[in-house]
This record gives sequence, structure tokens and C-alpha cells, in this order.
Amino acid sequence: MKKLLKYAFALWILAGFASCQPETKSTDSASGLQHPTLLLKKQDVATIRDGIEKYPLLKESFEKTKETADLAIESGIVVPFPKDPGGGYTHEKHKQNYTDMYSAGIVYQLTGDEKYAVFVKDMLVEYAKLYPTLGIHPEQKNQAPGKLFWQGLNESVWLVYTIQAYDCIYDFLSPEDRSNIETNLFHEVVKFFTVEDPYSFDRVHNHGTWCVSGVGMTGIVLGDSLMVQQALYSTKLDGSGGFLKQINDLFSPDGYYAEGPYYQRYALLPFIVFAQTLKNNLPETKIFEYKNGVLLKAVTTLLQMTNTDGRFYPINDAIKEKSWISAELIFGTNIAYAHNQNAQLLDVVQQNEKVMLSIEGLEVAKAIAEGKTAKFERTPMLIHDGANGDQGGLAMLRTENQESQTSVLFKFSSQGMGHGHFDRLAFMLYDQGQEIIPDYGAARYLNVEAKQGGRYLPENYSWAKQTVAHNTMLINEQSNYNGDAKLAEESHPELSFIDLDNDSIQIVSATDSSCYQGAVLNRTMALLKLDSRTYLIDLFKVANEKEANYDLPVYFNGQVMNTNFDYKRPEKQAAMGSKNGYQHLWVEAEASNLPSTASVCWMNKTSFYTMSVLTSPATKLVLTRLGANDPDFNLRNLQGMMIREPKSKNLSRLVVYEVHGNYNPVSESVMQSEGSVKNLSLEESSAGTTINIELKTDKVIHLQLDAEGTKHYKLIIQ
Amino acid sequence: MKKLLKYAFALWILAGFASCQPETKSTDSASGLQHPTLLLKKQDVATIRDGIEKYPLLKESFEKTKETADLAIESGIVVPFPKDPGGGYTHEKHKQNYTDMYSAGIVYQLTGDEKYAVFVKDMLVEYAKLYPTLGIHPEQKNQAPGKLFWQGLNESVWLVYTIQAYDCIYDFLSPEDRSNIETNLFHEVVKFFTVEDPYSFDRVHNHGTWCVSGVGMTGIVLGDSLMVQQALYSTKLDGSGGFLKQINDLFSPDGYYAEGPYYQRYALLPFIVFAQTLKNNLPETKIFEYKNGVLLKAVTTLLQMTNTDGRFYPINDAIKEKSWISAELIFGTNIAYAHNQNAQLLDVVQQNEKVMLSIEGLEVAKAIAEGKTAKFERTPMLIHDGANGDQGGLAMLRTENQESQTSVLFKFSSQGMGHGHFDRLAFMLYDQGQEIIPDYGAARYLNVEAKQGGRYLPENYSWAKQTVAHNTMLINEQSNYNGDAKLAEESHPELSFIDLDNDSIQIVSATDSSCYQGAVLNRTMALLKLDSRTYLIDLFKVANEKEANYDLPVYFNGQVMNTNFDYKRPEKQAAMGSKNGYQHLWVEAEASNLPSTASVCWMNKTSFYTMSVLTSPATKLVLTRLGANDPDFNLRNLQGMMIREPKSKNLSRLVVYEVHGNYNPVSESVMQSEGSVKNLSLEESSAGTTINIELKTDKVIHLQLDAEGTKHYKLIIQ
Repeated sequence: MKKLLKYAFALWILAGFASCQPETKSTDSASGLQHPTLLLKKQDVATIRDGIEKYPLLKESFEKTKETADLAIESGIVVPFPKDPGGGYTHEKHKQNYTDMYSAGIVYQLTGDEKYAVFVKDMLVEYAKLYPTLGIHPEQKNQAPGKLFWQGLNESVWLVYTIQAYDCIYDFLSPEDRSNIETNLFHEVVKFFTVEDPYSFDRVHNHGTWCVSGVGMTGIVLGDSLMVQQALYSTKLDGSGGFLKQINDLFSPDGYYAEGPYYQRYALLPFIVFAQTLKNNLPETKIFEYKNGVLLKAVTTLLQMTNTDGRFYPINDAIKEKSWISAELIFGTNIAYAHNQNAQLLDVVQQNEKVMLSIEGLEVAKAIAEGKTAKFERTPMLIHDGANGDQGGLAMLRTENQESQTSVLFKFSSQGMGHGHFDRLAFMLYDQGQEIIPDYGAARYLNVEAKQGGRYLPENYSWAKQTVAHNTMLINEQSNYNGDAKLAEESHPELSFIDLDNDSIQIVSATDSSCYQGAVLNRTMALLKLDSRTYLIDLFKVANEKEANYDLPVYFNGQVMNTNFDYKRPEKQAAMGSKNGYQHLWVEAEASNLPSTASVCWMNKTSFYTMSVLTSPATKLVLTRLGANDPDFNLRNLQGMMIREPKSKNLSRLVVYEVHGNYNPVSESVMQSEGSVKNLSLEESSAGTTINIELKTDKVIHLQLDAEGTKHYKLIIQ
Repeated sequence: MKKLLKYAFALWILAGFASCQPETKSTDSASGLQHPTLLLKKQDVATIRDGIEKYPLLKESFEKTKETADLAIESGIVVPFPKDPGGGYTHEKHKQNYTDMYSAGIVYQLTGDEKYAVFVKDMLVEYAKLYPTLGIHPEQKNQAPGKLFWQGLNESVWLVYTIQAYDCIYDFLSPEDRSNIETNLFHEVVKFFTVEDPYSFDRVHNHGTWCVSGVGMTGIVLGDSLMVQQALYSTKLDGSGGFLKQINDLFSPDGYYAEGPYYQRYALLPFIVFAQTLKNNLPETKIFEYKNGVLLKAVTTLLQMTNTDGRFYPINDAIKEKSWISAELIFGTNIAYAHNQNAQLLDVVQQNEKVMLSIEGLEVAKAIAEGKTAKFERTPMLIHDGANGDQGGLAMLRTENQESQTSVLFKFSSQGMGHGHFDRLAFMLYDQGQEIIPDYGAARYLNVEAKQGGRYLPENYSWAKQTVAHNTMLINEQSNYNGDAKLAEESHPELSFIDLDNDSIQIVSATDSSCYQGAVLNRTMALLKLDSRTYLIDLFKVANEKEANYDLPVYFNGQVMNTNFDYKRPEKQAAMGSKNGYQHLWVEAEASNLPSTASVCWMNKTSFYTMSVLTSPATKLVLTRLGANDPDFNLRNLQGMMIREPKSKNLSRLVVYEVHGNYNPVSESVMQSEGSVKNLSLEESSAGTTINIELKTDKVIHLQLDAEGTKHYKLIIQ
């Protein structure tokens, strides 16, 4: 009967959901469906067993999984009554349990050793006893709590893994065991998600994706087409939520996920995994071709949004330690490779030192064994944001050298939902693997119980999300949209022009007309190399209806080497302001009466960096240090410079950043430790703007920009 | 005639210098001495040429040297008139010149290609023209200036390399060229060092060692026994200075060099290199057996004084980036291996990716090619200080695991001359390759012109040398010896007892009775592991003649996670004091009315650390941040805790540090993020002291110490 169901279901999908007639649910275990059927498929088991002997990385991955399973069996089964929040014992134990079951299930398939099946069965039986007795978790923290976990999200993840474990031991179980486990555990969990508290399930959001994926995969294993249909089309089956809507709305055509790379990594797993299980069981869905193949594009786009050390650009709420060395990426890279044989993906797989234990993982391990790996290359790139690619985007300017690459991420994308920051037209700069001008990321210590249970901290709102926490312009010390997230969701910057195909210069310009009322902000950033130095030209223009104060903060990692102006260091350090994030900044030094080209040089690790600013007589420069009004030492210590222009109607703020020199601790030698910019000037007329950068070598870089919004620019070096 | 000279000289050495009758100088080039004769010896050239084909690391080293030489020849010869200080053009150029000549000289020997010899010759002729015209360098900075360089030290280094280059092309030169170069260059340089300004030459100091080595090696090559004798026995030939006196006074019998590891690395090169040239040319000196073979012992002792990443423990004036990946170490490890075949040295050589181009380097490259390398292991160790090993020392407590080792350096050594810090009984803690409780090192940006030409900064005196900059006790906010370096040189702490052979605990205790007048300070440190956690017990006792205030600063890297007490963060941050380094500390938070066991937990990278302090009702805790009164941003930002005990006669300050837990950004899991110490107590009587550490698991660690200065202690875990 399952087979019939499958056909009916496929037809139903093809016909669209308008005429939807949900099938009645079925747990008929006598059907023709073969288990396992999700990622690891019964028909591949023999091939994979064989491959383990042949391909080292497959073998290693199998052995790691077996190690986890063996350790789990040795440790015995503990299914504690839920009590602790993130990081606490019961939280971590339930997380470990799903990993253990998942590992044991796979190892059972690949070894045939029943002790692994017995372990999974016994634990599932414990969960089947426990689950129906549970109410909402005592430490619930938001509108979507779980029962096993403080938040429903963890519970969805639990389901994504646990249903795979169940799928692996399905054939081993007696009909009675199946009936018990399905009725008391899986149906209960699904009921919780789709009936008792469908908030997450129907949400177009990564939490929703985890939830529908878990339920959808459960539907496939249990042969329950309602579950699958709901997973695809929302509990109401009307397409107002569910997997397809999530793909439609959450990914731009370029494969950018609205919440940014940190969450894209996290969300990618259920997107890719559920898609692959759909492909394996309902190939008629052509899910990987859906929206022009955006799911696979999302994998490579995500990998591009990393620094040379593999860490994701930490835009929005992001934990900065997170890199592409990540369990989630194993699924993404393996499945993507199986589809497109992109040899650069193998580089990332090798760094993860693990493949999936599935036919895709085998294919990847085989390709690696055959030496097909190509070095992953980060290239200059424009990524459009928005479901239709029309809500601004991100531009990555990058020098050619890979290992020691200088790269700039310029962000003119949309708000990015609840985890978005008020960071319109912000940028960050990396060099030689280091964050030089960093984005703060999130104020959160993930899973560290002492830091509010690992939740987002109050400083995430008072600091990290605020505009002043980013390397972009503020008007009158206000955050974009006055910090109103709903308002911020409604508009976005626009790309003015971009050229990444010019060998001499990479240039991008974007405009925002809504983040400050009555003001139009335009920022142009250009990266070029000249005589062993790399320059980033940054022209930030504001056309304002009325006079205002402008602040351009620039945070930097490293030690100040010198400045070409005097400054005062106050005897007592006070906070810079009282709100919008300014309350967290200590004033370390203040300077006014600046030279017309003011510069600050700093050193980080083995390189030097110089910022040169074209000033007016009114320009002030403040050196800041993060950490004021931080009662619990939640904020990282970070130094910054704030370029202030008081009482001006319009503003053209020209800043040039320069990467130069070298400090070699082995040879104890220092080269080019001083900036090369002698003088900056700007010529503005109705026809356009010319930026002049006069160097100490007497060379001059001229960058001519036509009136904003056109594609015309011209670079002359004399 | 040279041969005769050699014999006479050897006899003279064996007879001692009391009856010294300096030979007259000779530049007779018709002698029997074969060139080259210093490190690369003529009789080995064929073997080494052969070895280059056989041993990859020898080949690679040769190719690197040849690359340097080829690039030098391509760039042409520039011998600029001396003008710039460290980091400036002429400074760096003269440095490059000696490296280029040295490389070309060796490559000439190993290839026979005369273009390399021509290059060296032409450059030497340029120097022979320039040198006699020079006065003291215009940027001279101290009492020992150079002529080519701002400091004589660089000039000595220049000579050490340049005389080797000359030695290599000696046979290629005409007698006229030799006469010109020797007369106008080498004799002039030697005259400058031994006649015009013998301050450095006669100094028992690393500058002296560079100087005597250069002159001594020149004497060997020129067949000038006076130079060699002066190098060994001072310009006065009376043994009041010179190489042997330097070995005697600067190294302890354990191979510890009085200035600390950073300078030991630097000084080791001339010690080892000159010694080897003595061995090669005057084997009767038995220089490597001198003082029980201390020179070779110094190599392994130095290598032990590193963190797991190879960086030297930054005691005294030390640049913290400096590691055993260092040109100087290549000579030390290669020559030491040739003598003692210690396979762990090969590990360090491999990390340096280079061997000497000499018979010793060949032996090392051969051993590596044959797979003889053993992993370098850092072991618990006591290193005595003082020429006779009786001036205190250093103890290194270390856990067994190598890569993720927890290690403690406890310093109770002597002042260490001009680069010494006022840091009696200080310690530093490393874990998993990271500095956790760091020593500040030096306030200096080596060779960075913007930072006072790369010199030691004013903050090196106002901060880095002061006692408050170290993790040790201060009485009445004064530095040890009131900051009087001369006084500090006169006395030193004493080892009270040590046991590094107990599997359960490593323990050391040391006492200082002179660094604060009227007070006896005793610190006992013990390292032990229990149930996956590592504990460092730190008992600091002061017996004082009168009532005083006590401060124990503890600096730490990482982010504060939580405390078990309330503290106040001032709205405005002010400096903690006005002198002795306190003027550089911002007060970030203050706490009083502490619980009897007060604890602070912090996270660094992937681990957690907790400090627990046994307090009295009067104890205060101040959180500090470095950077106040730092007009040029010369100081690194560093957080600290200051444990204060006001108005007490005696003090027993018990602190327990704990290494625990794990934050795994890949799996996003956190384990054991909280400290385990529940309660500390101390029982003191005339018989001794018992430290009780009650854990949250209800286990108790008792450490019983008998009256100070005895070897009796007992560890009981209940």
C-alpha cells in the first residue's frame, strides 16, 4: 500500500496543492517500502560495506561512527527526565542520545551486528515511555518550547536524527515494537509539532525547516503521507508555510539565505537532508531542480562566504568561532558533490575529515582517494539577497592570492529577519586569515550555562545589533530605522553598480534611502593593488534633508603604532553616550584640529594597516574601547575609531585603508611599516566625483565616479 | 707558520694565561691552514656536495641558501653610508649584506662557481673602502655604538657572518686582495672592538659574546693568535672577560643563561658557533667539555623553556612572538646533535626546515632522512640559576600530555642583569598551547620604526619591569628592591624544596628574604590532576616585621564567565595608582565582602579556567585592565585580577587555579564549564600547614606541608 500511496502523493504534488485531498495516515508495515530509505538506502548497504575497505576517508568516517556507537553502548542507556536548559546535563544528554542512536543505527546497517540495533531499540522504547508523560520543558525560553528540550528547535533536530536511527533498525523490530515506538513516540512528537504547538512548524524560518524536515522524514519512514504533505505545504496544507515556501522565501536565487551565513550553515542541514530523502523516495518532486537548483547553489554560496580559515563572515547574529569544519556541512558538501562533481568541494570535505555513510559519501571518498580534489578558491563575488534577488545583497572584493588573501565583505542586504542587525552599508576587512576590521557578530556564549544559559545576552540587543557596533555611518547617534526591526524588514539598500571583472580594481557601490528618514546614503568601496600594497577606497556619501551629526565607527584588531596627529587621553575614562550602543564605548582618546589627511597605523600579527581620512576643519576622531556599562563582562574588548562630522547637511566621507609591510618574528625584520598615503582630496561636481590619492612615492591614484547610480568609473594611476 | 702558531697557542692555552706571551700577529697566507676552516671545512666540502644529492633537508637548505645568493647577485652590490637606526634602510641593508655574503661564500664552496666568490670579493672590497672612513654611527643609542650600525652589537653580528664569507673565498683571492681586505676591513673592525671601544668586547654579557666570537673567528681565519687570545681572555688577556669567563659566569651548570630564554636563544649562536670553530681549529681547548659540557646542555635547556608551540617563556625583557623557529637555533640544534645524537633535537630541526651547510648539518639531515626523529617532549624540570647553580632557579611543572599540556613556570631565579624584571617568585600558566596566566614580557616593538625606532619603550621601565606587571606578591604597592636593579643583582630567592618525581603531584617551594626589607616571602606551587581536571595550588606566605598591604595580581587571557560574588563597575574608569606600574592599570571592577572562597571563572579559546581564593573579611578583589597613562598606545590591553589584603602583618594567601571543561565550536557543545572547588581552608601550626580543597563532588584534596624549608609534604585525596 505504501507504494500506491507514493504514487498518489507524487501525482498530488505534481497537480499542485490547490486540489489537495490529504491521504489518510498509514503505518502499514507490510508495505513494499524497503528500510532504510532516508539517506542510507538498503540497496546501497552492500556497496558501502565494500567501499569502506577501499576508500580511506569512508573507512575513517565509519570507524568514527562506530567508535561513537561503541562508546554509547558501553556507557549504557540514560534517558533523563528533562530539567536543564542549554548546556545543562539533561540538555546535553538528550543531544548525545540522538547522536548515539543515529550512529548505532548506521553501524547496525553496515556491520549487521544486532547489538547496535538492540541499543537503538532499547533507547527508543525508553523515549516511548517518557515522551507521552511530558509537558512543556520547565526551562522554556520562548514562544516555541520543546518537551525534551527547553526549545522546540532542539526537539526538531532530535527528530531529524532519531527518525534516521529508527529507519535503520526498522526491519530488526517486531511489529509490536514498531507499533509502540511509532504510536507513543513518533506520532506524539509529530502531534506536538503539528497540532499542539504548530508555531515553529508553519514558520518560514530555519526553526521551521528543522521542524518540517523531521516531520517529513518521519512521514516517509512511517508511510504517512499527511505528515509529508504537511511538511511540504504547512499544517494547513495550503502552501502558506512548509518546505517549498521556505525554499522560495528564504533563499535568494543566488543561494543566499536571508539570515546570513552563520544560520545558513545551520539551516542547510535540514534543507539538504530532507531534500535528499525526498529525492530518494519521491524523485518526482525534482526537489534539487526546484527554484533553478537553489539548494545546491546555496552550498557553494555558503562556502564562499568564509574567511581563508573557513570561518563564516559573522554578519547578523553569528558565533564567530563557527567555520566550515562543521557536521552540518558534511551533508551539504557530500550531497552537492554527488550532484555536480565540483572538485573544490572535496577540499572542504577533506578538511572536515569525514564523509556521510551513504552512497553520496562513498562517491566523495572515492573521488578523494582518486586524487580529484582541487583547492577551494575564494573569488570576488556578488550575491543578491531577497526571494527574487531584488533586495540588495553582499559583495565580496578579494585579491587573487588565496592563503594570504585580502578580502572585503560589503553588506547591502535586507534585514535578515529576527537575527538581523541594523548594519546597512557596513563592511568588514580580512587579511592573511585575520579579521582586521571586524564585525562584532553576536553577544552570546553558545551553550555556556554561566552566560545566561547560553542564550543571546542583553548586550546582543543593547550593543551587537545596534548600528554603532558596525563599520558604517550613523546619523545623530541613532541606529538604522531607530532600531525598529519591523520597519527595517520593509526596505533594503539597492546595488548602484558593481564591477568585479576589472583586473586593476574591484568596485561596488550601493545606496540606501530608508534607514535614516530624509537621508540618502551611498557607499562606494574599491579594492586595488599597487606596488605590493593593497588599498581599499571607501567613499561614504550622505545627502540629507537637514543638518545632522555623522559618526563613522571603524573597529580594528591590532595595536596602534602611530598617528599623524595629536590626541588627548582622558585621565578618567567615561562612556561615549547613554544609548543605542554608545553607552558601551569607553572614550580612550579624542582628537580635533586634524590634518587634512589624518592617519592611524596599527599592527596585527605580522602586518601593518593604515587608515587615512580626508577631514574637514570640524572633523573629530575618537578612539574607543568596548566594555562600558557591561555589568557582567559579557562584551569582548575591542578597540575602535570613530570619525565624527558635526553639524553638516551633506557629507562625503573619504577613507582609504591600506594593507602594507611585514613583521617577521623569525628573522626579526620589519618592512614597510609606514603607510604610503601622503594626501587625499575629493573633487565633486554635478557630473561626478574624483577621488585623488597622492602617495609618498608621488604616484597618484585617481578614481573618477560619474553621477551616482551609473556604471561609469575610471581609474588612472599617474 | 700558521701551524706553528697553532701549536704554540694550544700550549699557551693549556698552560693557562698566567704566563701569557701573546704571539705577534701574522697574515702569512702561505701557511698550511686550509680554508674554509670555521664551520664549513675544506675537507668536508666534497662529502657535503655528495650529501646534497642524498638528503632532502640538506638539499633544501642548500637551495634556500643558493636562492639568497642568486637574488643577491641579481640585485647588485650596494654598501650604503650608514645613516638609519634599527628598521631603517641602511640598517636593514647592512644586515642583508652580511647574510648575502655569507650565503654566497658557502654556495661558492659547494658549487665551485666563481661568480659567488666574485660577489663576496667585490662587496668586501666596498666595505674595505668604506669602513676606514667611518666614525661612530650618527644614530648611536647607548654606550656601545657601532660604525656601520647604530649599535655595536649589530656590528659584531656582521663580523660573525662576514668573516665566514671571507673564509669561504680566501683561496679564491689574490694576495693583494687579501691584504687589502684584511688590513682595511677586518683589522679595522677588530681595532674598533678591541682598541677604540672595548667596552662590549670585555663585557660579560651577550653583546660581549657576539663581539669576542666575531673577533676570535677573525683571528682563526687571519692566523692572528692575539685576536684569538683576546677573544678567550679579554683585551687585557687576564681572564677578566672573554669567552671562557662568559661561559663561566653567564651559564648555570644546568645550562641556564642568566638573561633568560629570549636572550639565551640570541646569545647561543655566538657561543655555539665560536665553540665549534674552536673545536675545529683548536681541539685542544676541549671547549664543549668546558664546565661539564655546559654549552651543549644550554641547547636542550633552552628548548625545554618553551610553550608547546615552541615560543620561549617570556621572562625578563622578551619579545613574545619569538619561538624556536629561529635561525640561531639551527646552529645550536645541529651542532648539539652532532655531539650527542639526541633524536628529539631532530624534531626541532625539522620544524626549522633547515640545516647548517656543514658536516654537522649533513649528519642531521642524514639522521632525519633515516627516520630517526623523535618527538620533542617537554618534561617537568628544575633549572638552577647562577654560575655555580646556587642562585635560585626556575621550576617547570607539566602534565604528561604533550600537545595539550598544562604547564607552569615558577621563577625564583636571580635578577638576570640589565634585562631582568622585578619578578621574584612570579609564575605563568600555559594550557593547550595558550598563555592563560601570562607574563607580560617586554614593552617593545622590535625594529618597528614608529615605536621609538624599535627600542625598548618607556613603558618597559614604567610597567613591564615593575613587580606589579607580574603574577607575584607586592608589599605596600612597591616593586621588589624598590626597583633598584643593582640591589636586586645582589641577592636572589632560594629553593626550599621540590619534588617532580611523584606521579600524583608536582610540587615546588621557594623563599625570598631580600626583595622586601623585613619580610620573608615563601611560595609553594603544586600541580595535580584529579578526575579530568587539573589543579594548580598556590600558597603564598609572607612573614613580615610590620603591618603592611599586600597585593597579588593575576593577569589572564580570556573572557570572564562568572564570579560567585558581586562587584561594582565604576561609571568612570580611573588609574589604580600613580607609580610603580599601578598608574597603568584601569580599575574595571571592585569587590569587597567576598565569600570565604571567592571564585572567578573565565574562558579562553576552547577551555575554562577558575581561580578560587581563600579570603578574609578584609580581602578585596579588583579587576584591572592595562592601558592607563599610556600616551602612545604602547601597552597591550590585558585584563587582570588583583587580590588585596590590607593592613596585615603576616599573610597566607591560598589560591587554587583549575583547568576544566571544553567548548567545542564544531559540535557546539560545552562540558564542565563550571569550577569544581566548593570550599578552601587552611590549617596552620608550628608543625606545618594543611591546605584543604573541598570539591563540589565532596571529594577533598588535603595537602600537608611541614614547617617551611623541609622536604616533607603529603597529599591525601578523600
